[in-house]
Amino acid sequence: MRNDHREVNELRKVTIETDYVKHPEGSVLISFGDTKVICNASVEDRVPPFLRGQGKGWITAEYAMLPRATEQRNIRESSKGKVSGRTMEIQRLIGRSLRAVVDLDKIGERTIWVDCDVIQADGGTRTASITGAFVAVVIALGKLVNKKTIKELPITDFLTAISVGVLPDGNEVLDLCYEEDSKAQVDMNVIMTGKGEFVELQGTGEEATFSMEQLQKMLSLAEEGVSDLIKLQEEAIGEWSDVIRTKAEAAK
Amino acid sequence: MRNDHREVNELRKVTIETDYVKHPEGSVLISFGDTKVICNASVEDRVPPFLRGQGKGWITAEYAMLPRATEQRNIRESSKGKVSGRTMEIQRLIGRSLRAVVDLDKIGERTIWVDCDVIQADGGTRTASITGAFVAVVIALGKLVNKKTIKELPITDFLTAISVGVLPDGNEVLDLCYEEDSKAQVDMNVIMTGKGEFVELQGTGEEATFSMEQLQKMLSLAEEGVSDLIKLQEEAIGEWSDVIRTKAEAAK
Amino acid sequence: MRNDHREVNELRKVTIETDYVKHPEGSVLISFGDTKVICNASVEDRVPPFLRGQGKGWITAEYAMLPRATEQRNIRESSKGKVSGRTMEIQRLIGRSLRAVVDLDKIGERTIWVDCDVIQADGGTRTASITGAFVAVVIALGKLVNKKTIKELPITDFLTAISVGVLPDGNEVLDLCYEEDSKAQVDMNVIMTGKGEFVELQGTGEEATFSMEQLQKMLSLAEEGVSDLIKLQEEAIGEWSDVIRTKAEAAK
Amino acid sequence: MRNDHREVNELRKVTIETDYVKHPEGSVLISFGDTKVICNASVEDRVPPFLRGQGKGWITAEYAMLPRATEQRNIRESSKGKVSGRTMEIQRLIGRSLRAVVDLDKIGERTIWVDCDVIQADGGTRTASITGAFVAVVIALGKLVNKKTIKELPITDFLTAISVGVLPDGNEVLDLCYEEDSKAQVDMNVIMTGKGEFVELQGTGEEATFSMEQLQKMLSLAEEGVSDLIKLQEEAIGEWSDVIRTKAEAAK
Amino acid sequence: MRNDHREVNELRKVTIETDYVKHPEGSVLISFGDTKVICNASVEDRVPPFLRGQGKGWITAEYAMLPRATEQRNIRESSKGKVSGRTMEIQRLIGRSLRAVVDLDKIGERTIWVDCDVIQADGGTRTASITGAFVAVVIALGKLVNKKTIKELPITDFLTAISVGVLPDGNEVLDLCYEEDSKAQVDMNVIMTGKGEFVELQGTGEEATFSMEQLQKMLSLAEEGVSDLIKLQEEAIGEWSDVIRTKAEAAK
Amino acid sequence: MRNDHREVNELRKVTIETDYVKHPEGSVLISFGDTKVICNASVEDRVPPFLRGQGKGWITAEYAMLPRATEQRNIRESSKGKVSGRTMEIQRLIGRSLRAVVDLDKIGERTIWVDCDVIQADGGTRTASITGAFVAVVIALGKLVNKKTIKELPITDFLTAISVGVLPDGNEVLDLCYEEDSKAQVDMNVIMTGKGEFVELQGTGEEATFSMEQLQKMLSLAEEGVSDLIKLQEEAIGEWSDVIRTKAEAAK
Repeated sequence: MRNDHREVNELRKVTIETDYVKHPEGSVLISFGDTKVICNASVEDRVPPFLRGQGKGWITAEYAMLPRATEQRNIRESSKGKVSGRTMEIQRLIGRSLRAVVDLDKIGERTIWVDCDVIQADGGTRTASITGAFVAVVIALGKLVNKKTIKELPITDFLTAISVGVLPDGNEVLDLCYEEDSKAQVDMNVIMTGKGEFVELQGTGEEATFSMEQLQKMLSLAEEGVSDLIKLQEEAIGEWSDVIRTKAEAAK
Repeated sequence: MRNDHREVNELRKVTIETDYVKHPEGSVLISFGDTKVICNASVEDRVPPFLRGQGKGWITAEYAMLPRATEQRNIRESSKGKVSGRTMEIQRLIGRSLRAVVDLDKIGERTIWVDCDVIQADGGTRTASITGAFVAVVIALGKLVNKKTIKELPITDFLTAISVGVLPDGNEVLDLCYEEDSKAQVDMNVIMTGKGEFVELQGTGEEATFSMEQLQKMLSLAEEGVSDLIKLQEEAIGEWSDVIRTKAEAAK
Repeated sequence: MRNDHREVNELRKVTIETDYVKHPEGSVLISFGDTKVICNASVEDRVPPFLRGQGKGWITAEYAMLPRATEQRNIRESSKGKVSGRTMEIQRLIGRSLRAVVDLDKIGERTIWVDCDVIQADGGTRTASITGAFVAVVIALGKLVNKKTIKELPITDFLTAISVGVLPDGNEVLDLCYEEDSKAQVDMNVIMTGKGEFVELQGTGEEATFSMEQLQKMLSLAEEGVSDLIKLQEEAIGEWSDVIRTKAEAAK
Repeated sequence: MRNDHREVNELRKVTIETDYVKHPEGSVLISFGDTKVICNASVEDRVPPFLRGQGKGWITAEYAMLPRATEQRNIRESSKGKVSGRTMEIQRLIGRSLRAVVDLDKIGERTIWVDCDVIQADGGTRTASITGAFVAVVIALGKLVNKKTIKELPITDFLTAISVGVLPDGNEVLDLCYEEDSKAQVDMNVIMTGKGEFVELQGTGEEATFSMEQLQKMLSLAEEGVSDLIKLQEEAIGEWSDVIRTKAEAAK
Repeated sequence: MRNDHREVNELRKVTIETDYVKHPEGSVLISFGDTKVICNASVEDRVPPFLRGQGKGWITAEYAMLPRATEQRNIRESSKGKVSGRTMEIQRLIGRSLRAVVDLDKIGERTIWVDCDVIQADGGTRTASITGAFVAVVIALGKLVNKKTIKELPITDFLTAISVGVLPDGNEVLDLCYEEDSKAQVDMNVIMTGKGEFVELQGTGEEATFSMEQLQKMLSLAEEGVSDLIKLQEEAIGEWSDVIRTKAEAAK
Repeated sequence: MRNDHREVNELRKVTIETDYVKHPEGSVLISFGDTKVICNASVEDRVPPFLRGQGKGWITAEYAMLPRATEQRNIRESSKGKVSGRTMEIQRLIGRSLRAVVDLDKIGERTIWVDCDVIQADGGTRTASITGAFVAVVIALGKLVNKKTIKELPITDFLTAISVGVLPDGNEVLDLCYEEDSKAQVDMNVIMTGKGEFVELQGTGEEATFSMEQLQKMLSLAEEGVSDLIKLQEEAIGEWSDVIRTKAEAAK
């Protein structure tokens, strides 16, 4: 039995609230149970130096937690004067994942800055960040289409992330909350497209290992979760869903 | 006429939502119009080195903005690797102000960490932070009283902050929004207790000056605003209001 | 009685020595009793990026103490690798205050760097810095006028700063030395022009508060002190005094 | 055809030289073709603060490249004053992987520092680092056993890492050199034990995705590579191989 | 001919003013012509961690320039967030030199902090710093003797530093001013004791070289300069001179 | 007797291996006994800002040790976030020394980056670095000549460095190993050209002093060592030796 009585393949309650704050081009508050992340997408009309003059764009992400998003207060990274390895890993993962479904050649010399700020943490903050960030980016790029700044929505497929893992009792489960995550033998993050392709796969057995069979079971659970999450993303982005689905189909 | 049709002595709509996130001992979302700040108070069972062994406590504050709290995205201070002068000034001000109404001798060797994180900015973020932080601190300390960790609520009076200023047309106004603030000749922050005493007064005429008469008018507006804000704080903290009022009266 | 037998409205002995070191365009050693600050003004023929191409200039200030300016040796900020919040607050205050009396439109695309280095500290270092920095800036800009680099002295009024406060016995006093300052209930810095207008007003009641009546008394003391300081500035800058007085009069 | 004429399942020439430098308890130079990494294991007789007093040990890793290990010279991270996100990711991965096969309860309150310094880079530096670091750690711990500082070799299984990927032509290949890696659609690092269990799995499709079928093919290639690498590790560590194999068998 | 008409073996006017600022245990303003350095010696009643419990003391030095000590304003090292290589070299040199003539076993577990702050620079700041720092240290340690904190003055000999060099015309000269120094082929700093022994010798031919013969000539000039400087140190430290001379004689 | 039975004027076994790693334009592994340093020279087609547009080049050096190059593991400077004073001193010395024998006017607007990475340390790492770096730079510049990027080898003479010192028994010795160095009364580094001129001379008597007579004896030992090292450099650089000797002769 899971500590919150969920089935092994059951997501926590997931909600996606759009237009959460007013300034960003795309702004989302995503919740996975008690995990809450503000995902803001900002459009900047220039690209980093290594891309200048190539006519294409860039997406980059930053991730942070409020100091008291967690049970114990964490020291603010701005006070420490440096970003932790964990934070860097997560923000590199978010950026890389988004770049897999955005056609950077079609956004002009623009940078999409994605800020994922965790205001309350209960496990799965990085996968919630990616799932919410995708929605914020679609909304931001949709506005560029509506303003005719760019011709068409340059999104090639849905993008969704979910955690799976192996609990101490040996059961594979979907969408671990913090209590489960802190005890899990294996922790795996799966980032997938709407077509069911992998964008990123990161499985870790800290002080433990996992077999091919366990890997297969975890991947099956992830696939189930992903399809539920895509439905929620579709609701959040409304009419843009059809555009994305059509593009994804055409690319098959 | 003010750009949002308010009277010169009229506050924006102010709301205080308590228990905003679940982990902190005190958690508040305060809004002054479109300015929204999460104020979290955390209790740590130790004090900084300079206070150890003295049997008294400490309150310190940190302040930050989400990168896209503003019209233009700001670079994250953790990425820059250092905290700006503006941020330092604000967090020192918040901490100093709270220490004026908390009896540090009565909280034991504990530190109250106050985190003010602006999720949406439209002027007056530092005064909103102080006004909300006071509520978060009362709730956090109230829990210590309820758990009998400390004997009584060590709060000597209400604490409220508000901005006043002089617009380009020469009019003194209360509670400037960002558009007003960015054009104002004079910008003043007034931090006051429930008894109407000053805790802190900071008036600045960047590339301008102000007269004794203007000062007096601004202080009168501030007093009006403060009394409205205290009513909202009273609602937010409920029964603790009477305790604080009684203490403040007794100290007169 | 004050510990050095001064009247409540009596300044310490103030001296202003010009041409203190040879390289800067303006160089001053200012003393307020045992507080001694070297104020150097340097002219650089370019402005920060945010002002380029606008034809106007900029004034910025930096403040530091020698490690043993104080009773206890302080760790050098260059060794710590960062500037403290206190230092940032002070140097922002100095720069802002000077910008209020210098017509930046009339100095061309130049930056005036003001360096205030405290070589001996006994309270009131920030107000001594501002009072001395004004003289250094006038001398530096006067040289630009003499060399016909700029047409006229772009100073709109005198600028002077002084501290006032409330001692533990409840008395308001002018120009607190370190021993007074460290025990004061209220500490206020008043930056004023020759016309008696406020440029900046910063009053703090750390772990205490102050009333409107106390505020008024402190402001009166400050006005007395300011008029004495302006006389000393006039002596230090010689003939430029008339130019400034004339300009200030004309602007009334 | 691969650019160096290897079969898709063929490793580059791999060599492991032990006792490479004289001071470390374990020192290895590992080569995967032109990729050369010095892996040093150092034993320190204390643990980080979070582990003190628990009677168990710790393993941590650091990774760096000489500035000219690569085709273009890289700026030294000590000169930049911070460690890049890529470096952090790699050193966290190396440490985590080693901890999966070392029984930290059996090394006492000691820290094993693993330093992986790439002196020449041609792709696969992180997997070479892990494969070489395992050998260095076994040698260092073996010395502790020989000196009777610890009772038995606390290694639960072999640990080996290899990269696999999908080339632009759609072929899955083993052990990508830099030229292949820089063009690959998918890049996956597989860290495995001698028993064929996964310790860590990191697959990335930067600006691309991969299917379940491709994942399976890559994992098969990885398994082939791993078994070859373990043979080389066995030669390098000599008699300790039997001890590890016996332990790994017993734990099945 | 030298640009200021000195003989090749002639020092600039050197003055040593003691008790320059009031807080430090030893405080000196030393001038070599237009080079002016404040040298403060502070006594701290503890030693760095690597010396604790050994019953002996430590001397360490820090060196800085005011930003406008030079013709062009330099960026403050605290603003840059790091100390330059040049500064580190100089402060290590000052500390090392002083440790050669102070008997650290006789000062107890104390640290002497020496702060050399250049307020005006015209060449030879590091040698002026050492020459002045020696006086400040003697005064500070003399106070410890007078207060009977330590038994006797733990100074084994005088310590003096001077620069010599080779000008573009091939002439060896003593005590180079900035104009000479910036053009010199060879620049050498000689730190010597009262007995004429070398403490430190640093000769540099940036983009040039020097012969054994030139070395000998420079060393002769240095010896002449050193004996003049010792006379000035003797005047500055008064009665302690005899104590030091006696000790130095006894140790021969 | 020396601890490794060498004569006072005897070098340790010195070897110079060229083409040590493949990417740099010049790459050398130099050994002085157990001291081993990788010296890589990289050519970059631009110069630092202060030299742009002058048609001349620059040479700069960086120096580091692997953490476990020494008996005790050192914390990595990239982890500490800053470069130590010792490292800065050494890298400034290497760069300055090389610039004395390279005609920067003849390499065009190029920077030669010299990286000296100590993989095993046993005393004399800075002198080994300079001696090896010279060879790496000649090879790198020789390639530019061979590719006709520059017309002729812009090296004006050989450059070699060696340490000398005074042991506790009062004997002057050549080429101190770590054990000798850590006990030596005097430590001197001598950097010389093939013609026997000094490029740099740095003698230090930490907590000790040395006489003119000792200086002369140390310089004689250094001269002996230098001539042996030049022979090894000649072998390493092959045909370029004649070019350098001819140039050096012509310049006499």
